[in-house]
Amino acid sequence: MKIPSFAPIPAGLPATVPFTGPETLQRRRGRDFAARLGANENGFGPSPMAVAAMADEAALAWQYGDSSSHTLRYALADHLDVAPENLVIGEGVDGLLGLLVRLMIAPGDAVVTSDGAYPTFNYHVAGFGGLLHKVPYRDDAEDPQALVRRAHQVGARLVYLANPDNPMGSWHPGHVIQAMLDDLPPNCLLLLDEAYVEFAPEDAVPQITADDPRVIRMRTFSKAYGLAGLRIGYAIGHPDLIAGFERIRNHFGVNRIAQAAALAALQDQGWLADVIADVAAARDRIGIIARANGMTPLPSATNFVALDTGRDGDFARSIVAGLEDEGVFIRMPGVAPLDRCIRISCAPAAELDVLAEALPRVLARL
Amino acid sequence: MKIPSFAPIPAGLPATVPFTGPETLQRRRGRDFAARLGANENGFGPSPMAVAAMADEAALAWQYGDSSSHTLRYALADHLDVAPENLVIGEGVDGLLGLLVRLMIAPGDAVVTSDGAYPTFNYHVAGFGGLLHKVPYRDDAEDPQALVRRAHQVGARLVYLANPDNPMGSWHPGHVIQAMLDDLPPNCLLLLDEAYVEFAPEDAVPQITADDPRVIRMRTFSKAYGLAGLRIGYAIGHPDLIAGFERIRNHFGVNRIAQAAALAALQDQGWLADVIADVAAARDRIGIIARANGMTPLPSATNFVALDTGRDGDFARSIVAGLEDEGVFIRMPGVAPLDRCIRISCAPAAELDVLAEALPRVLARL
Repeated sequence: MKIPSFAPIPAGLPATVPFTGPETLQRRRGRDFAARLGANENGFGPSPMAVAAMADEAALAWQYGDSSSHTLRYALADHLDVAPENLVIGEGVDGLLGLLVRLMIAPGDAVVTSDGAYPTFNYHVAGFGGLLHKVPYRDDAEDPQALVRRAHQVGARLVYLANPDNPMGSWHPGHVIQAMLDDLPPNCLLLLDEAYVEFAPEDAVPQITADDPRVIRMRTFSKAYGLAGLRIGYAIGHPDLIAGFERIRNHFGVNRIAQAAALAALQDQGWLADVIADVAAARDRIGIIARANGMTPLPSATNFVALDTGRDGDFARSIVAGLEDEGVFIRMPGVAPLDRCIRISCAPAAELDVLAEALPRVLARL
Repeated sequence: MKIPSFAPIPAGLPATVPFTGPETLQRRRGRDFAARLGANENGFGPSPMAVAAMADEAALAWQYGDSSSHTLRYALADHLDVAPENLVIGEGVDGLLGLLVRLMIAPGDAVVTSDGAYPTFNYHVAGFGGLLHKVPYRDDAEDPQALVRRAHQVGARLVYLANPDNPMGSWHPGHVIQAMLDDLPPNCLLLLDEAYVEFAPEDAVPQITADDPRVIRMRTFSKAYGLAGLRIGYAIGHPDLIAGFERIRNHFGVNRIAQAAALAALQDQGWLADVIADVAAARDRIGIIARANGMTPLPSATNFVALDTGRDGDFARSIVAGLEDEGVFIRMPGVAPLDRCIRISCAPAAELDVLAEALPRVLARL
């Protein structure tokens, strides 16, 4: 006897798991990684105040979280100088991306992104039946003009751009993003993924009022705040757009411990500043390791560095596989010509030491 | 300037927030509740081992959770005597309900449930454009035969039944559920919500093999295991159906601390047994309080008791409002004739003391 059939859109989606996590790789190798440098996690860790908040909240885990994340949302509004109505808290940027796509995209609607940009966004677009149109990177950065041009050509409802970019670490000055808004087609929203914005230079942050109806910005506690495992992020946008999430979101979906930890993390801006400095130092160290091994570190405004191997995707993939054998988890861009690079997440010195020792051995074997 | 338009299905959904949480009510009243008896949370709390696991895991919150929840899934498979391929871990039953509806229901597809059953399921069906058909409760219980009959009439793709039931606490013997499976229309799935199953008598649990393609069962760590705030639950079903979730779920969406806490909670079956005994005692106490106030406690196989006020919905609603004024958070069924009842969650004695003192005052004022 067969199971009842899936709805047409899910029935047409790939059955394979799109994203392999480091734990899965560890089980395959039979050993844990000595250095976890592949998922742009923040090994400098969350604020000790956030860790204490989690432990404090643990005994209250029997209570559902506040469905409106009120305390956190008001604290964030204050921190960002926006209204609480400009903010929705969600289960990380990944969760918010899914909700936004569902809110905006009907089957067959056109969506524009860059070829090689964040695959989870593409996963959600396909998952809701949207039609993805991809423009190439230009000089290892997403190409705002090309994105807007394509949006006009295909009548896009949604344009995705990450600033700073993942996986390349590149960024645009804020005014370039602002200019995009004026050039968007009618009835088209810019989705500005700012997951890495805390690491970026100040002038990479566009000056956009939270009430601007043409754009939604997404940010997270996963990266600079070091809370990836808690799944908590937020979107900033026009109140009417933010209100749309209330129609479809899982109202009690945000973890109570995540709410408490994010609030504590937000309140410890000193720790955040220290982490940003640690990440900057780690970027420099990764650059030194790269050059010592004949690679070129690309400029980065994030907590990772793309290293240009100077060769092709096959070569880069063999480095990723070789490092996995050596106990170093990294990832790399998925499409040419970006895939000439490997991508290394910033981490404390001990983990970069492991990389510095393993990389020459891997290259010697190739 | 207006925001870009929503996709047609979300555009047609209600803009209001469907579920008001107790924190929202507390902010409206300007005071915290003295007794939190409205959301069927488990005030006896999670296992101390789970609390310790949360504190231990807090320092690792910078790492994403394992995308396949491997350790927990294998432990659950062992505990339930099913294969790991029969299980998917998700962000609570609420999250899994949304994914299942999305997986099975195309816009316009028919779905059958009971009038007054779990509203979050209805929310997801509407959210994906499904057409809900409701059959009435019969003797304060969901009516399996009527559900199946309606499923045939409307060509349903999905039938929802909770056993034990929320909000009434009633239940059917397992063989009644098993008989439903044989009577389902072709290409129709039974969604069996077993969120409260740990509280139920053994013969209320149907004997269904995990590979049965006609049914998916959903369970949670929110209720008996006392981890509502962590958002972690699971579904049991045929491997082909379970594999469908891989096409659409948020692969890194399950909280790392929730994974650790759920595993520890599962391993402390002694605590679970104690909680189940505490809940049974609290049900008896709620019954005593009810009778002392001229109400009739309905039999319950859950961690809450529906109290028949002997009057109508307006009367019951005024009790809910009156108790809120007194600092007691409860809820009640949403539709007649169920709404002659109020619903009280089991809780430690101190909270039931608050109820016992407040209820006569509320009734005296009505």
